[in-house]
Amino acid sequence: MTAATDRVPDLLDAAAIGQWDRECDVLVIGQGVAGSCAALEAHRAGAEVLIVERASGGGGASAMSSGIYYLGGGTAVQKAMGYDDTPDEMANFIMASCDPLDPQAVRQFCDDSPAHFDWLEEQGVPFERTEFKGKAVYLLDTTCLMSTGNEKVWPYKLVARPAPRGHKVAGEGENAGHAGMAPLLARCEAEGIPAMYDSAVTALVADASGRVVGVRVKQSDRTIHVKARRAVIIAAGSYNMNRDMIAKNLPLLGETSEPLGIPSNDGMGVLLGLSAGAGTSAMDGVIPTGSIYPPAQLIKGIVVNKRGERFVTEDSYHGRLGNFVMEQPDQKAWLILDSEIFAYPENPFARHQLVDGWETIEEMEAGLGLPTGSLVKTMAEYNTAAAEGKDPVLHKSAEWLKPLDQPPYAAFDISFDRSTYLYITLGGLKTGPNGECLTPRAEPIPGLYAVGASAAHIPRNGKAYASGMSLGPGSYFGRRAGRHAAGANWAT
Amino acid sequence: MTAATDRVPDLLDAAAIGQWDRECDVLVIGQGVAGSCAALEAHRAGAEVLIVERASGGGGASAMSSGIYYLGGGTAVQKAMGYDDTPDEMANFIMASCDPLDPQAVRQFCDDSPAHFDWLEEQGVPFERTEFKGKAVYLLDTTCLMSTGNEKVWPYKLVARPAPRGHKVAGEGENAGHAGMAPLLARCEAEGIPAMYDSAVTALVADASGRVVGVRVKQSDRTIHVKARRAVIIAAGSYNMNRDMIAKNLPLLGETSEPLGIPSNDGMGVLLGLSAGAGTSAMDGVIPTGSIYPPAQLIKGIVVNKRGERFVTEDSYHGRLGNFVMEQPDQKAWLILDSEIFAYPENPFARHQLVDGWETIEEMEAGLGLPTGSLVKTMAEYNTAAAEGKDPVLHKSAEWLKPLDQPPYAAFDISFDRSTYLYITLGGLKTGPNGECLTPRAEPIPGLYAVGASAAHIPRNGKAYASGMSLGPGSYFGRRAGRHAAGANWAT
Repeated sequence: MTAATDRVPDLLDAAAIGQWDRECDVLVIGQGVAGSCAALEAHRAGAEVLIVERASGGGGASAMSSGIYYLGGGTAVQKAMGYDDTPDEMANFIMASCDPLDPQAVRQFCDDSPAHFDWLEEQGVPFERTEFKGKAVYLLDTTCLMSTGNEKVWPYKLVARPAPRGHKVAGEGENAGHAGMAPLLARCEAEGIPAMYDSAVTALVADASGRVVGVRVKQSDRTIHVKARRAVIIAAGSYNMNRDMIAKNLPLLGETSEPLGIPSNDGMGVLLGLSAGAGTSAMDGVIPTGSIYPPAQLIKGIVVNKRGERFVTEDSYHGRLGNFVMEQPDQKAWLILDSEIFAYPENPFARHQLVDGWETIEEMEAGLGLPTGSLVKTMAEYNTAAAEGKDPVLHKSAEWLKPLDQPPYAAFDISFDRSTYLYITLGGLKTGPNGECLTPRAEPIPGLYAVGASAAHIPRNGKAYASGMSLGPGSYFGRRAGRHAAGANWAT
Repeated sequence: MTAATDRVPDLLDAAAIGQWDRECDVLVIGQGVAGSCAALEAHRAGAEVLIVERASGGGGASAMSSGIYYLGGGTAVQKAMGYDDTPDEMANFIMASCDPLDPQAVRQFCDDSPAHFDWLEEQGVPFERTEFKGKAVYLLDTTCLMSTGNEKVWPYKLVARPAPRGHKVAGEGENAGHAGMAPLLARCEAEGIPAMYDSAVTALVADASGRVVGVRVKQSDRTIHVKARRAVIIAAGSYNMNRDMIAKNLPLLGETSEPLGIPSNDGMGVLLGLSAGAGTSAMDGVIPTGSIYPPAQLIKGIVVNKRGERFVTEDSYHGRLGNFVMEQPDQKAWLILDSEIFAYPENPFARHQLVDGWETIEEMEAGLGLPTGSLVKTMAEYNTAAAEGKDPVLHKSAEWLKPLDQPPYAAFDISFDRSTYLYITLGGLKTGPNGECLTPRAEPIPGLYAVGASAAHIPRNGKAYASGMSLGPGSYFGRRAGRHAAGANWAT
């Protein structure tokens, strides 16, 4: 049932379909967060909706995720916790960090973000009025608000006033996302939106004009064709698990990094879009994460490459730092600490190994096999500037600056090919402000939409990503696509 | 003699070369600005240098260019014209706008930039102490200093103090670059650096360890093999003219845009590097330019797409604006003016066509075939904010804001497929701080360097480019590669 290769399926000709086995107005492929939101909005706008889901139930990768929604501009939680974030500040941050292809769509997302948060709560998605002020990659408890991106990192902090915009659903454990998906799935069921499970869409069907008018569905015992009178919405997740597509688009990921996702994140959504002439975007974008924090004090260390040089400010979002590590010589990097800040990284997945401890920087340099004098020079310059609260080249914020001058010294190997970096791909189908699939020349393809991780993310590389930039925009543009596909105007 | 396809040539085995026809220490492929600077530095560091150039004389695309070097940090010209630019500000601008893969190399370029300018003058490259304060794409006279990038554009203006960093050589006409190349070529000749002209390198030669040790050269009447005892430096220009590589990497360029370059910019430099296992970077980066200015007053107009929406701030560098136009629906865009600012774009190459004039915005909207109400809404919002000196979504600077409310109105068609956009590719071989060719995993390839447009530019897309970011870094990293290849430490 999964696409093992990057082969684009055939686009079927509607004229060759003898008889449709079933009909609907709007067919939604996949029932993760984007598909669920699309289905709900299309249904409420009066369309006859059908969900086709490969798994035996809804939830998708959204339910397996840590459950963080990137939202802001003054959400109820932000207000309750005392932040006066505005759509202007949120948009400025995304504009500056992502340089997005569609600034107007980004602006809409930011303007509508507080209302969209309210809508999610109205559906029963639970969010507490609580905040975590520390540095974490994900939270195991139900705390809601957290800084999850590069908002406080130079140069973005100069462009937009930082505010925490990660909104975690009130679920526990590593896969808290399910606590957000359960209410959405319950709504779909309560409102009578039909869903076919254990059903894989294996091809799109188009009419002579190129309009997408249906799909072919493979079930365990049969293959059927379903007509979609208005539109097909692809919400089938990312291509994280498609080895051929990964090898082609992200050759640097290598053998040791591991995809974060579920088996159906095999790129079939992207391949279906390609079959209908859709363009893609950001296919080489990825977040490889093997965070050095928590604990936060480790950010006061420095990260160096095989040349003994720093290459990224250590207070970056973990996906940004990981992206830079991936691109370093031989993908090698080390986290350097002194005794004052020494701690083990609390990252159970990355498994960063302690290399050793040394009494002098010279010994550490030799122990790590770095060029003679390189680390000595790097640390001398860093320490001199840090003592003045400065980092002239990479601009780490003053709160994380301190001279690393208290022996013994220690180094953790955070090399890309030694630690385990978990990755999320960011590329996907090119889409318009309502999730319309676009051709390479950005013209809408009639009858076809893509949302969630089947569509390209707003950030086109992991350096610009923030946790929650999948569920946040995924749910919002899912809703827009649902309404648009049903022929209704957008309203939050 | 040119690579018509994207076929990577074979890497020849040194053991199979019966006899070398010629030997040198450092072989430089191409005698544009990067190759000339590399040859001079390697020669002066004591290496026996040989230049192999396809044309009948030196100069390359550098001599055909408009002759702008992006340099700053307090050059002699900047100081003479009253600017107190610093390496910090220059580096901050490049860091924020380019998010470069190698921050330390960028920093070195900025720190050394004033001294590198002095070096260029010492070689005889002529620069006046003059400044052009207006908006231009290139200058026909000998004026030197000009703003050529996005320094004054949001958000970069918030991160680094803007300074003009385009340094044009004191030559006249569209191809002033020759005035900068002539002295460098004369120096090469005066110092006795041998050059073989009408000679195309068609393959690299490597030893059993993978070290590049020579090249195969095709001349009109024979094919010879030249041994390079220390290194081969690829300075053979961009892949602008290679149709296969363009189609593969930049499918959006289409049929109507035209490459800026010379026939030998056929990607052979990149292909030679690939043959030795080098990686590439930014191969999908391009500057398509069809500037709307001069005259500068046109920047007070707005640019809209087929949806009737603005998508990029109009005070952007022309390459940034063109890059956004390329990505718009159906690649369509119009420059909208009112009678107060009406003028014809003075861009002889782009040939932007005046569509028509209209008494009302509604008529203009209909005349351009835009969705009903779209342009009316866009202009109403723009005019209201502009009256207050604001542009909340796209942040055009106040000096370019004025309500467009003086009929009649006019529109120029600046669509990507209607106007003639001239393009420069930015992608190329992945290189280290001394121009070392790197594998995809960023490990140096022994004996191989790439500089100038055969290497990837610092800006990885046209949105981040500034005029002069080819000649400036090309000459600087050319020098570094020359010294490094000769076994000498870097010294400005």
